[in-house]
Amino acid sequence: METNRYNKGIEVLQQMVSQETLNATVKHIEKFSPDMAKLIVEFPYGSLYSRPGLDLKQRSLLTIAAMVASGSAAQLDFHVQGALNVGLAPNEIVEAVMHCVSYAGFPKTLDAMFVVMRVFNEQGITYEEV
Amino acid sequence: METNRYNKGIEVLQQMVSQETLNATVKHIEKFSPDMAKLIVEFPYGSLYSRPGLDLKQRSLLTIAAMVASGSAAQLDFHVQGALNVGLAPNEIVEAVMHCVSYAGFPKTLDAMFVVMRVFNEQGITYEEV
Amino acid sequence: METNRYNKGIEVLQQMVSQETLNATVKHIEKFSPDMAKLIVEFPYGSLYSRPGLDLKQRSLLTIAAMVASGSAAQLDFHVQGALNVGLAPNEIVEAVMHCVSYAGFPKTLDAMFVVMRVFNEQGITYEEV
Amino acid sequence: METNRYNKGIEVLQQMVSQETLNATVKHIEKFSPDMAKLIVEFPYGSLYSRPGLDLKQRSLLTIAAMVASGSAAQLDFHVQGALNVGLAPNEIVEAVMHCVSYAGFPKTLDAMFVVMRVFNEQGITYEEV
Amino acid sequence: METNRYNKGIEVLQQMVSQETLNATVKHIEKFSPDMAKLIVEFPYGSLYSRPGLDLKQRSLLTIAAMVASGSAAQLDFHVQGALNVGLAPNEIVEAVMHCVSYAGFPKTLDAMFVVMRVFNEQGITYEEV
Amino acid sequence: METNRYNKGIEVLQQMVSQETLNATVKHIEKFSPDMAKLIVEFPYGSLYSRPGLDLKQRSLLTIAAMVASGSAAQLDFHVQGALNVGLAPNEIVEAVMHCVSYAGFPKTLDAMFVVMRVFNEQGITYEEV
Repeated sequence: METNRYNKGIEVLQQMVSQETLNATVKHIEKFSPDMAKLIVEFPYGSLYSRPGLDLKQRSLLTIAAMVASGSAAQLDFHVQGALNVGLAPNEIVEAVMHCVSYAGFPKTLDAMFVVMRVFNEQGITYEEV
Repeated sequence: METNRYNKGIEVLQQMVSQETLNATVKHIEKFSPDMAKLIVEFPYGSLYSRPGLDLKQRSLLTIAAMVASGSAAQLDFHVQGALNVGLAPNEIVEAVMHCVSYAGFPKTLDAMFVVMRVFNEQGITYEEV
Repeated sequence: METNRYNKGIEVLQQMVSQETLNATVKHIEKFSPDMAKLIVEFPYGSLYSRPGLDLKQRSLLTIAAMVASGSAAQLDFHVQGALNVGLAPNEIVEAVMHCVSYAGFPKTLDAMFVVMRVFNEQGITYEEV
Repeated sequence: METNRYNKGIEVLQQMVSQETLNATVKHIEKFSPDMAKLIVEFPYGSLYSRPGLDLKQRSLLTIAAMVASGSAAQLDFHVQGALNVGLAPNEIVEAVMHCVSYAGFPKTLDAMFVVMRVFNEQGITYEEV
Repeated sequence: METNRYNKGIEVLQQMVSQETLNATVKHIEKFSPDMAKLIVEFPYGSLYSRPGLDLKQRSLLTIAAMVASGSAAQLDFHVQGALNVGLAPNEIVEAVMHCVSYAGFPKTLDAMFVVMRVFNEQGITYEEV
Repeated sequence: METNRYNKGIEVLQQMVSQETLNATVKHIEKFSPDMAKLIVEFPYGSLYSRPGLDLKQRSLLTIAAMVASGSAAQLDFHVQGALNVGLAPNEIVEAVMHCVSYAGFPKTLDAMFVVMRVFNEQGITYEEV
C-alpha cells in the first residue's frame, strides 16, 4: 500500500534529520508541490533507504559518494546531517568525501568538503585528523 | 617515500583483484605509459584506499556509487570484482547499485546493473533476492 | 496500492515498446533482480509517465533530452522506440536530439544521433529532412 | 547570411524573455564579449529554436530537461521565464521538472524545482496541483 | 555569409582529419541529416576552431580536456587524430589526457587513455615516455 | 620522497596564485583536514602540473576546459587567476572558455564566463575583443 511506503519513508527521514531540517526541505517543497514531496518520501526513503541488505550507515556512504560524483553540493548538507544522525563518525564522513577524489576529481570533491566543513562548524563538531 | 606509496598501492590492489585482472588493466597501461600506471597504483590505491578510517568494504561501496553516478560503466567490472574480493556479499553489491538510482537516475544505474549481471555470470555467482 | 502502481506502469510500457523489447529489457532484469525490475515499472512508468499534466509525446521529448544531456546513449534505443510508438514523428525525434546540442554539446548529441540512425535503420524508417 | 541568423535569434529571444531579462543576460555578456553574445543569439536561438519541426513549447520542454539533467540550475530561471512566455502552463513546467527525476536523480531535480519555485514566486504565479 | 562559415569549417576539418575519417563521420551523418552535418561543420569548426586568439594546437588541447571531463570517449578518436594532424606530439596528447585525472577522475581519464592507445596503435605511432 | 613531491607542488602553486589566494584555499582546507590539503598539493600540483611535456600555459588551458566541461564553476576563479599568472593573456582565457561551448554546451560555458568576468573585474583587467 502507498500509505505504507509513505510511512516507511517518513520513519527513515526522522532517523536521518531533525524536524527543523525536515520542515525546511520536504515540508517546504510540499507547500509548493505535494506530489513532488510525496515522491521524495516514497521513493528514496520509502522504497530504497528502508530496504534490508544494507544498513543506514552504508546507505549514507553511498549517497555521499553519488552526490559528490554528480556535483550536487547544494543539497549535500542534508545528507551530511543524515550521515551524522545514523551514526557515521565525523571522521568517516570526511574520509568518505576524500575517497571520492579519485573518481570525481578535485573540484567536485572540494565543493563537497566545503559543505562538510560548514555543517560541522554549524553543529559545533570538532573533527581531528589522526 | 614514493616506493612506500607504490608498494602500499600494489598491496591493496592484490587484495582487490586477481593477478590476471591486474595484468589486463594496470600492467596493460604500464606497457604504454609507465607514469600513468604509477599514478593509478600510488594515488587511488596507495594514497586513499590504504588510509585508515574506513575499511575496504566501505571504500568499495563509495567507489561503486561514485562510478554509477559519473556514468563510468566501462570500468565498473574491475570494481565489482574488487568488491567481491574485499568481502562484500553479492547481495550488498546489487543493493548498492540499486540505492544509487535516486541520485544517478535509472539509465546510469541500469548501465551499472548490467555490468554487475555480467560479472556475476562470468564468475558463476548465483544471486537470489529475498 | 502497489499493485495499482505496477499495473499502471506496465500499461504505459505496453504503449511504448513491443513485447519483444519489454522481454529483452525489463523482463531480462527481472530474472536477475525482481526488485530492480519492479522499481523500473513502478517509478518512471507507474508514478511519472502515467501522471496527467503532460501527454506521452511530451514526456518522450523530456526523456530524450534528459538522456542526451546525461550521456546515456546506451539505453536510448528503448526510448527512441518508445517515442515512435507514442506518436512522435521520426522528424520530431531527430529535431529533438538536434535541439539538445546547445545544452549537451556535440559529442553527447552525436552519440545520441547515431542511436537514432541505428533504430530508424533497423525499423526501416525512412526519414527525410525538409 | 549571418545577419539573417542573428535577426532570427533576436526574434526568438524576444518571444521568450522580457527586454529586462535580455538586458541582464545577453546584453550583459555583450559588453564583455560581443562574440560570445553573438554566438548565443545565432546558435541556440538563430539556428535551433527557429527551426521548423518542433514548436517553441516543445523546444522549451527539451531545454528544461536538458538543463535539469546537466545540473545547470544557475541559468534555469531564464528558461522558466521563456517557457511561460511561449505558452507552457505553470503546471506543465512543474510536471516537466518532476518527470526528469527518473533520469537526472533527485538532487539535480530538486535544485531545478527550487528555481521554478523562486521564479513563480517572483512573478506572482500561483500554481495548484490537482 | 553562411557559405563562408561552412567553407571555413571544411577548411579546418581538412587540416584535422583525413578524407577517409571525414567521410566516416561528417559525411556519414550528412546522408541521414544534412542539417545536423551542416551544424557540425559551421559551428565547432566554422565558428570556433577558425577563430583567431588560439592556434589549432591549443584548441586541440582544450577539446581533449573537455571530452575527457564529459566522459565522451566514443568520439575521442576523431580528436586524437585531429590533435596529431595539427601538430601535437604523441607525448603531448598522452600528457594532456593524464593531466585531466585531477579534474575528471581516474575512470573517465582511463577510458580516454584507452582510446589514445588504440589510435596510436592503429596509426603505428610509437610513443615512449621519458 | 613525499617531501619532494609536496615541495614541488608548493612551488607550482606559488607560480600560479598569490599567497593570499593560497591562504584562502589550500591553507583554509589544511586547518580542517591536513591530509586533504596535502593531497591537493601533492597530486594535481606535485605530480601532474610539475611534469615535463607540457608547460604551465598548456596545463592551464587543459584545466580550464576540464572544469568548464564538468560544470565546476565554483572553483574556477582560482584557475583563472592561475592562468593569468602563468602567462596566458586575458584574451586567451576568454577564447578558451568560448571554445568549450561545442563540447560543454552553453549553460556550463556561460557559468564559467561569468566567473572570468568577475575575476577580470576584481583584478581591474580590461579585456577587448578584436
